[in-house]
Amino acid sequence: MAELKNRQWLLAARPQGIIKETDFRWNETTAPPPKDGELLVRNLAFSFDPTQRGWMSMDTYIPAIPIGQVMRASAIGQVVDSKKPGFAKGDLVQGLFGWEDYTITDGGGLFSVEKFPRGTDPVLSLSVLGITGLTAYFGTLEVGQPKSGETFVVSGAAGATGSVAGMIAKLKGCRVIGIAGGPQKCEWLTREAGFDAAIDYKNENVGEALTRLCPKGIDIYFDNVGGEILELVLDRLAFRARVVLCGAISQYNEAAGVMAHPPRNYFRLIFHGARMEGFLVFHFAQQYPAARQALSEWHAKGKIKNQVDLQRGLENAPKTIIRLFTGANFGKQLLTLGNPE
Amino acid sequence: MAELKNRQWLLAARPQGIIKETDFRWNETTAPPPKDGELLVRNLAFSFDPTQRGWMSMDTYIPAIPIGQVMRASAIGQVVDSKKPGFAKGDLVQGLFGWEDYTITDGGGLFSVEKFPRGTDPVLSLSVLGITGLTAYFGTLEVGQPKSGETFVVSGAAGATGSVAGMIAKLKGCRVIGIAGGPQKCEWLTREAGFDAAIDYKNENVGEALTRLCPKGIDIYFDNVGGEILELVLDRLAFRARVVLCGAISQYNEAAGVMAHPPRNYFRLIFHGARMEGFLVFHFAQQYPAARQALSEWHAKGKIKNQVDLQRGLENAPKTIIRLFTGANFGKQLLTLGNPE
Repeated sequence: MAELKNRQWLLAARPQGIIKETDFRWNETTAPPPKDGELLVRNLAFSFDPTQRGWMSMDTYIPAIPIGQVMRASAIGQVVDSKKPGFAKGDLVQGLFGWEDYTITDGGGLFSVEKFPRGTDPVLSLSVLGITGLTAYFGTLEVGQPKSGETFVVSGAAGATGSVAGMIAKLKGCRVIGIAGGPQKCEWLTREAGFDAAIDYKNENVGEALTRLCPKGIDIYFDNVGGEILELVLDRLAFRARVVLCGAISQYNEAAGVMAHPPRNYFRLIFHGARMEGFLVFHFAQQYPAARQALSEWHAKGKIKNQVDLQRGLENAPKTIIRLFTGANFGKQLLTLGNPE
Repeated sequence: MAELKNRQWLLAARPQGIIKETDFRWNETTAPPPKDGELLVRNLAFSFDPTQRGWMSMDTYIPAIPIGQVMRASAIGQVVDSKKPGFAKGDLVQGLFGWEDYTITDGGGLFSVEKFPRGTDPVLSLSVLGITGLTAYFGTLEVGQPKSGETFVVSGAAGATGSVAGMIAKLKGCRVIGIAGGPQKCEWLTREAGFDAAIDYKNENVGEALTRLCPKGIDIYFDNVGGEILELVLDRLAFRARVVLCGAISQYNEAAGVMAHPPRNYFRLIFHGARMEGFLVFHFAQQYPAARQALSEWHAKGKIKNQVDLQRGLENAPKTIIRLFTGANFGKQLLTLGNPE
């Protein structure tokens, strides 16, 4: 096989405050052939996820990305060469790859490589059927335990996980209120995604709106943002409420490991007999097939709408991750490099 | 009936920082006869509980005590005169009474008046069989859900609730580690109360001790103190850990409603698929009889030891509540006024 030119973005610096383009460094090299047990994958599309800031900053549930190494990303690609049993040239695979044209992987680790049927839309595989959709699925159903008639509030509601979480809660009979930034996102939530109401945190008093929209208190809060909004929700919990901790994007830009704004009123959990429970999607890995089956069906029936913010070209990866942390994206942030063969 | 002299402690000021004797004002008046539906109760003993600081400061799960009103306390007393069906002179009753010789009550409210069999030890009724013991019971069993072989850590471990919580966890087969202040309390925990280990937070590095004593992480943390110790525990959780939020005495001396030290690393709940759950004992009111039955039996068999710090005389009530917040008490803090007739 001819030598493969491999363009890459390396991690140049741990982010201080908001991620900057200079936190990454462009590199050009060649992709080696796979060794025994390895795959050589051509990347087709990258997922952009809040958790990536953690990987850039420090050891979390996986070790930090070493400085000078390829920026890590959840991605879908196509196998170019396989020395791993069970995988063949042309297979569509999803896993934890990197911002580069070609990735060598042994297929293991926390996000172990998964095969998708040929013909699967790469965009769908990284959104509704990917980590994003699965996160919404398990967070809402397994952690949130929604019951019909309950009030379900989700922040980051127009985001990739938040929107799917709200739509799943709606399917389970909840009254669903989304918190998002800007009138366009809020209109999408109520017109397209079927939410009962939306709160524009950039232009509304969130506390007043929650009080007005949740007269019986909040039964389930799917938290993607942390910070002040989490505190406003904790002040308005219903009895036996569940706070699903999915993320805290408002806090990720702070110095490593320090929360600028932890919930000063977490004590409200006591008064309301409520709980705050965290999860990682990997904790439910054994249930992925059933979850994908359900998500596929809901998507096919139009009950789950897939809103995607699609950027193009490897060179634009740093600009694209910044979109995520400035809230410029609308829907699941993806970047495509090419089409499957 | 002759006029009854009634000595009282009124709330004079909302506490700023630590409770001071001048937050209370002595008053002498007479007790009126009960009206229809009311009881006149002679107080025999008062319970001292961390939650009282909340009642003094602000509306919490019940309205704040109004300035100038009798200081509220969980108490046991004997009915002197009854205009309430189902209650008769001589009955032993427990309820939310006040720092005074005689209390008039309609028997309702969150701590509704409960009758105890004549002959019940007033001290036992306010400790193992009272709110304290019930809090330990429900927090440990219903919220904590202990399983045999799990590691159970409790703070405020030599306190009235913490010690019973640890002994119940021990009965359920957990490895139990208590955090308490001073060598005397720690020695009591391991020698008398049957804990597997104790950490003296005044003389030991709590983080190092937890790391050493909990090599597989902490499965259940029964939190009575909040603050820094909560953070140290959150950094050492086992997968699917449960943090039982019972109180945060280290935080109660702060200005009303402001937590000086909320858990900046609550985010750890996400990595460990763990939860933090609050409760009030009243949420389990329907299960009190079964809980008292179990606690009685365990106490009679010597499996639950009752450590009580007994003060005497109504005039000493302010000094006694201060003992609780300075950690001077050892075991359940009570104050007796007299014996049942």
